[in-house]
Order: sequence, then C-alpha cells, then structure tokens
Amino acid sequence: MPTEALQFARQNQSRFLDQLKELLRIPSISTLPEHRGDVRRAAEVLAAELKRIGMENVQLIETSGHPLVYADWLHAAGKPTCLCYGHYDVQPPDPLEEWISPPFEPTERNGNIYARGAVDDKGQMYMHVKALESLLHAHDGKLPLNVRLILEGEEEVGGEGIAQFVREHPERLRADFSLVSDTEMFAPDLPTLCVGLRGMIYTEIEAHGAATDLHSGIYGGAAPNPFFALCQVLAQLKDANGHILIPGVYDAVVPPSAEELKAWASLPFSEEEFLHNEVGSCALTGELEYSVLERLWARPTLEIHGMPGGFIGAGAKTVIPAKAIAKVSMRLVPEMEPQKIFNLYKQYVESLCPSGISLDVRLIHSGDAIVIGVDNPYIEAATAALHQVFGKDTVFIRSGGSIPIVGDFERSLKIPSIMMGFGLPDDNLHAPNEKFCIANFHRGIESLIHFFEMLGAEGHGEA
Amino acid sequence: MPTEALQFARQNQSRFLDQLKELLRIPSISTLPEHRGDVRRAAEVLAAELKRIGMENVQLIETSGHPLVYADWLHAAGKPTCLCYGHYDVQPPDPLEEWISPPFEPTERNGNIYARGAVDDKGQMYMHVKALESLLHAHDGKLPLNVRLILEGEEEVGGEGIAQFVREHPERLRADFSLVSDTEMFAPDLPTLCVGLRGMIYTEIEAHGAATDLHSGIYGGAAPNPFFALCQVLAQLKDANGHILIPGVYDAVVPPSAEELKAWASLPFSEEEFLHNEVGSCALTGELEYSVLERLWARPTLEIHGMPGGFIGAGAKTVIPAKAIAKVSMRLVPEMEPQKIFNLYKQYVESLCPSGISLDVRLIHSGDAIVIGVDNPYIEAATAALHQVFGKDTVFIRSGGSIPIVGDFERSLKIPSIMMGFGLPDDNLHAPNEKFCIANFHRGIESLIHFFEMLGAEGHGEA
Repeated sequence: MPTEALQFARQNQSRFLDQLKELLRIPSISTLPEHRGDVRRAAEVLAAELKRIGMENVQLIETSGHPLVYADWLHAAGKPTCLCYGHYDVQPPDPLEEWISPPFEPTERNGNIYARGAVDDKGQMYMHVKALESLLHAHDGKLPLNVRLILEGEEEVGGEGIAQFVREHPERLRADFSLVSDTEMFAPDLPTLCVGLRGMIYTEIEAHGAATDLHSGIYGGAAPNPFFALCQVLAQLKDANGHILIPGVYDAVVPPSAEELKAWASLPFSEEEFLHNEVGSCALTGELEYSVLERLWARPTLEIHGMPGGFIGAGAKTVIPAKAIAKVSMRLVPEMEPQKIFNLYKQYVESLCPSGISLDVRLIHSGDAIVIGVDNPYIEAATAALHQVFGKDTVFIRSGGSIPIVGDFERSLKIPSIMMGFGLPDDNLHAPNEKFCIANFHRGIESLIHFFEMLGAEGHGEA
Repeated sequence: MPTEALQFARQNQSRFLDQLKELLRIPSISTLPEHRGDVRRAAEVLAAELKRIGMENVQLIETSGHPLVYADWLHAAGKPTCLCYGHYDVQPPDPLEEWISPPFEPTERNGNIYARGAVDDKGQMYMHVKALESLLHAHDGKLPLNVRLILEGEEEVGGEGIAQFVREHPERLRADFSLVSDTEMFAPDLPTLCVGLRGMIYTEIEAHGAATDLHSGIYGGAAPNPFFALCQVLAQLKDANGHILIPGVYDAVVPPSAEELKAWASLPFSEEEFLHNEVGSCALTGELEYSVLERLWARPTLEIHGMPGGFIGAGAKTVIPAKAIAKVSMRLVPEMEPQKIFNLYKQYVESLCPSGISLDVRLIHSGDAIVIGVDNPYIEAATAALHQVFGKDTVFIRSGGSIPIVGDFERSLKIPSIMMGFGLPDDNLHAPNEKFCIANFHRGIESLIHFFEMLGAEGHGEA
C-alpha cells in the first residue's frame, strides 16, 4: 500500500511534468551574458514554487554572479537534516541546427522529454521539489526529516557563487548529509549511486602573433600564425595514446582500490556497445592499457573544446589572424590538486611557446576530484529506497564528470554527499537533443519520497 | 600642359571619390550567402555607370555564382586592345569590433578612405572606370585604344565563374594584354609594377570523431577529440622553422633568377621596420635561411585561417565536439601545380589521421603561381606613364598574394598582364580598417590615363 505521499505523486504526474516543461522553457544559460535575465527568472520561478508547496525561509541569495535559491523546513526534531542541492542553469544549446526540436521548447518523444537542461539538471533538481511537495501535502505541511535546499545558477560556469557561500556561511547550510541528483544510472532500470567524481581545471590558452589580422598571401611565410602555434603547443600536451605529457602531472594520482576495480569489472558493460551506441566513432581512444571505465572514472584526461578566432564562416578567407584561443580542460582524479595541476600545465605550455608568439594561459574554473565512502546510514537508506522502486540492488559507480560542490560540502560542511541520479548514459548532456526519460523523472520522485520517509522513520536520528 | 582627359579627371576628383563611396557602401561580400543580393547590386551599379560614361555592349554575364560585368569599346582601328580586369566583391569584415569606423560606411581620415574593399579591389577597379570616363569625355566618346572591361564578383572566393568564362569564351575577351590593378606599391611614392604572384590552394580538413557532441567529463579519456586530432595533424604539416613537411612539396619549386634576387636586395626594405610597423609581432618567423622578401614572394607557405566547431563562446562549455574543421591554405610558387600539390597534401594529411577519427580533406579553390616577363611594350608604356605621375623609375616586385585570373589570362588568352597597383603595404587588406590612400586613387587614375594615351599614340599598333 503506497504511502499518501506516493499516492499524491502518482496522481499529480502529469502536472509535475507540465511544471517541469515551464521551467525548461526558460533559457537559463549561465555562461552567456545575454541570458542573465533568464537565469534570474528561473531562480524566481523556483522560489515561488518552493513557497507555494510550503517550504520556509524561501529566498534568493545574491552572489557575484547568478543568485542562489534557498529554502528550508527544520521542524523534525531529532531527525537528520538533508541538504538538497541542484542547479537551475544550463549549458548553451549550440550547435542549434542539430536539435530535432528546439532546445527551449520541451518536446515529448519516445517516452522522453527533449530540452536543454531536461536531465542536467533542471529535471533532476525538480524531482527534489516535487518529492518535497508530495511529502508536505501528505503530512499537513510537515516533512519526515529536516531539509535545507540550495539551488545554484552557476554550475555550468564553475559555481564560484555557491562555493564562496559554502565557505563563508557553513552554518546556514548545516546538515548531516547532502543529496545531489545530477548523475546518471549505469544502465536503464539499474539503480545507481555515484560515489566518485573527477575534478577539473578549465583553461584558456590565448596566442598572440601579429598586431592585426594580416593577408596570408602578403605576409604568409614571415608572420607568425597563432593557430599554427596553438596546434604545435596542443599536440605536445598529450601523446597519441592519451598520455598527458605535462611533467609531474601523474605524480599524485591515487588509483582505485582492488575491491572497487573488481566491482567495476562486474558491471554490465560492453565496450562494443559503448563504442557503437554511445560514442559512435570508429574506435575508442585514450590509454588502452586501462579499461574504459578506469579511463573514464579514475584517470586524468585533457580535452580541447573549441578554438575561437580567425575565420570560421563558410567559404574562404585568407587571413592570418592576430590571435587565436584554445579552450582546454583537464579532468582530475584523487589526489590531484587543481591549482597545483594548473601550475604544472601553465609552466609546460609556456615552455612550448613558439617563436614570434606570446601566450596567455588562464584558469577559468576548477574543482576537486572526490570519493565518497559507502559505509554510512544515508547510503543504506538510499539503496533501500531504490530497491523499493526498482526491485534491484544498487550498483556503486564513479562518474567521469565533475560536481565541484560535492568537494565544497565535504571540505566546508564536513558532510558526505549522496549522489542519487536518474539520468541515462544516452541523455546527451551538454550536447544537442538533451533528454530525460519521463519514467525516470517519476521513479526519481518516488525514490526520493521513500528515501526521505526511511530517514525520518525511527533509527535514523541526527548524528 | 595636361591633356584634356587629365584636366577632366582633376576637375572631377571629388565626384569620383563620392561615387567610389557609394560603391563601398554596398556590402558585396561574396563568401556569405546572405549578401548575395548585395553582390548583384554592386554589379548593377557598375553596369549602369559603364553605360553612362559611354562604354558599349554593357552587360551582366551570369555564372554559376555571382555575375560578371562586361563592357567594351572597340573602334580604335590599328590600336592595341586592353582587357581591363577588376573585382567588385570584398572579404567579410569580421572581426567587426576592431573597425574604428564601420566597414561599409566609408570614412575619410588622414588622407585615406577607410572601408572594406577600399583598396581590394573596389577603389582600384574604379580607377579604371574613371580613367575611361575621363578619356571618353575628353575625346567625344572615343578612346585612344580598344578596351574590353571585365569585372568579377567572386575573386575573394576563388573566381570560378570568370575562370570558366575565360576558358569557354576566350574570343569574347580577345586582347593584346590585360591590365590588373589589385596589387600594391612597394613603398609610398614608389611606382611599382608587380611581375609575379604566388599561386594557392585553399582547403578544409574536417575531422569527425563521435556521432554527436559528448560531455567531456563523462566521455573524456575514451572518446576521440576531433580538435586534438586536427592539432596533431596540423602540427606535422610544418616544422618550427617554417618548412612544409609534406613529402615532395618542394620538388617543382623554381627559385627566382640571380638578377631578380639582386634587384630585390636593392629595394628600400628594412626587416626591422617590416616587423615593427607592419607585422607587429615579437619576431618574424618562417624559413630564416631565406630573406623576408624571398619568403614572401618566392617560397611556398602553409597557413591555418580558422578552426570552426566546438564551443567558441565566452566562458566554459565542457564538450567533446563530434566534428571540427581546419581552414588551411598553401601559397605556391612557380612551377608548383595546384592540383598536384593538393594531392600530395591530401595524401599526407590522410596518412596522419589519428585513431578513432575520420578525415575529409577538400579543395575549396586554387590558382597558379605566375611570373610575367618585363620585356614587352605594355610594361614599357606602364613605366613611362608612372614616371609622368610620380617622377620616379618603376620598381618590379612580386606579390605573395594570388590573383588566379592572371594565370587564366595567360593560359586561355595567351596574353601577359600588367599589374599596376596603387595600394600601400599598410592598407589592411582582408583585415579590419582596410583603407586606400585618396591621393593614390587620383594618381592611379592619372597614371592609367597616361598609360592609355601612350599606347594609343603611334608606334603601339596591334601585334
């Protein structure tokens, strides 16, 4: 017999989805200055909804960038306090022409909802809101445990605002654990908790050659070319087998335990299927001496994201551009310190600077790699809740992605994070045609209701 | 005592400049499909003006791309026939933010007119029109020699339309020589004829990795990165000292004669000034074992113009793009055959293709390198005409740029080209703040009037 909260969630599935669509229609792209107003609008819509469902102390907290949305409900004496985290900003949608339906017109197809932010992270963040609504509605405005909720609008641009808030006001977020739904399930129908994340540094290398753009006929052969310079530099950052060539970069790397490696080896993973169904290239690349899951979860990498500058239109323009930029990031694993790694990177890049060129190497943002222990009551409750909904044992995985706030929670609040996500591997995060499985949106809400109810039941008192 | 044509040109200087400004206001950017109508409008304005001044058989000739503008006046029996060539299309103006005045609002500053196309080639092409107007007006609608005039709208995108027309209808352009004003003077006040051009191949290398853009956290370390692949490939095309590494690429290169090298060495050229006043980088680059002028005029080069794809906005987007493109051109010298060089390039690029990536290497357009002999009556008349206006001996230079039509004229019409240009080295061709010295616009018109009058005088009969 489902609890009243579960019944409420089931009866309101269609409204919950409609509300999510409203939120997805707001192009809250945090990295583009022209969408600043949209980002704030998304925050305001969420704050209004949190008030409406009965959360307390709802407020926008201003930062140097986009605002935080805060709410709490703290009247469950003797019960644990959960810090719900999510983000309401999204990645830019380009390349626009590859979207089947427009990125900010949420569209249902094949049981999925397609939109930028559908799974990363509006859809998943909204599961928290709707689970809380169901519980508040079913229990006369009460929750079975204490909840603080903090939503940020800068996750896709480094999350500096929330990081600073956590550092400076840890007392305002005091909790026993955090709950983050911004990860994915290892396979459809396979309940998954993520217990490790890679860290990152996101950088730009700007190369300057001539004082102004030059005609490549008239100057080609004597004037420096910043694109060629960047290619020379970038080609020396990684070898053909995926090994990063920055001296000292691997020194601090801590490999996963033998037990973790064994568990990964038993996951339902086919390299062939991963290649053909997810990546779709003619071959996988990288450090072939490691398994694919090790390469993705436990090895550092270096990627180029784009190279702005010069002529990028159709056709031909014979220009030697005055400057060119490379957007380069590295993913880090435990115990690689972002600032230390950036210093090694910058030093190495500068040492490769070709003649006639000056290089500016800058850090855009960074985050720590993290590993969460699995022996705590919140993980136990999470696996039990997931078993209720999926009827299966939970697998523990890592993610190759980065959620810097998890490191901030650990450092400043001294609490572990439960990363309970319901995305799927083919959800096209950060890519055209991002989607979220509608069934998972609803199973996520139900799992969270179970989870909160279990933690509120006896035996899970505040630590 | 100036001739009547010269007097007319002097009396009408200010109208000539105003008319040029009208033409410069039309954004006839041939490479951008959205400006197709503007390109045609420029052609129509020119055709109307040619009719007005008294040229005959004025017509737009349709091509697969932008139209040609044709006009002639062929009643000077026994006199030579000049084929005047110019182009009315322009390069794209980006980066827009670096223009001091908008690219399509011609603005006078410091004796120059600033606009996209001011010198390349609207301003120079229009000198022909205004010289012809002056002569027609002064001689009751007659010219001292026969003239055919052909203007194209695709020079900046490879000139395929005119090349095909020249190949297929050589009889419609029959002439004794062509006159091209699309080059520059070696120094201010130094009359210059260009007698050599580099050829070129303009190419794109498109690298494909994954089937769709991927999240660099979730896939980084196992998925191929097309930008990294392009960097690996491009870095192997040229060494740090400017030597092209494509096997066989230098096999056909014919060096300049000892006499030509000696003449270049005596030109007023300072490497220091070139570095500081024109290039403005911290050092010159390329094959340091050759002089700068040899590197620019007589050595092949390879340049990267831009690398479209991925994320190029402000801020951070953690994407492994599915594809990336490099726009790459090579400048060729006599006797490098463009198609042969492209084949060597394509073969070598494909041989460098990294694992997980597929490469598509395509030729966008090409043109032959060319050297013009200096022992013909048209060069003689040109140097005499320039002496009348500048009071100095003409220097013979080459240009590192490419004017493929000059090769087409040579091949299909069997005629030499007189490249009499009045641009200056710092005119910012293909770059922001393109300009044309207003004095040179008028001196160019006067030089052309002298030139035509000399060739029409006795002793320069049709060959």
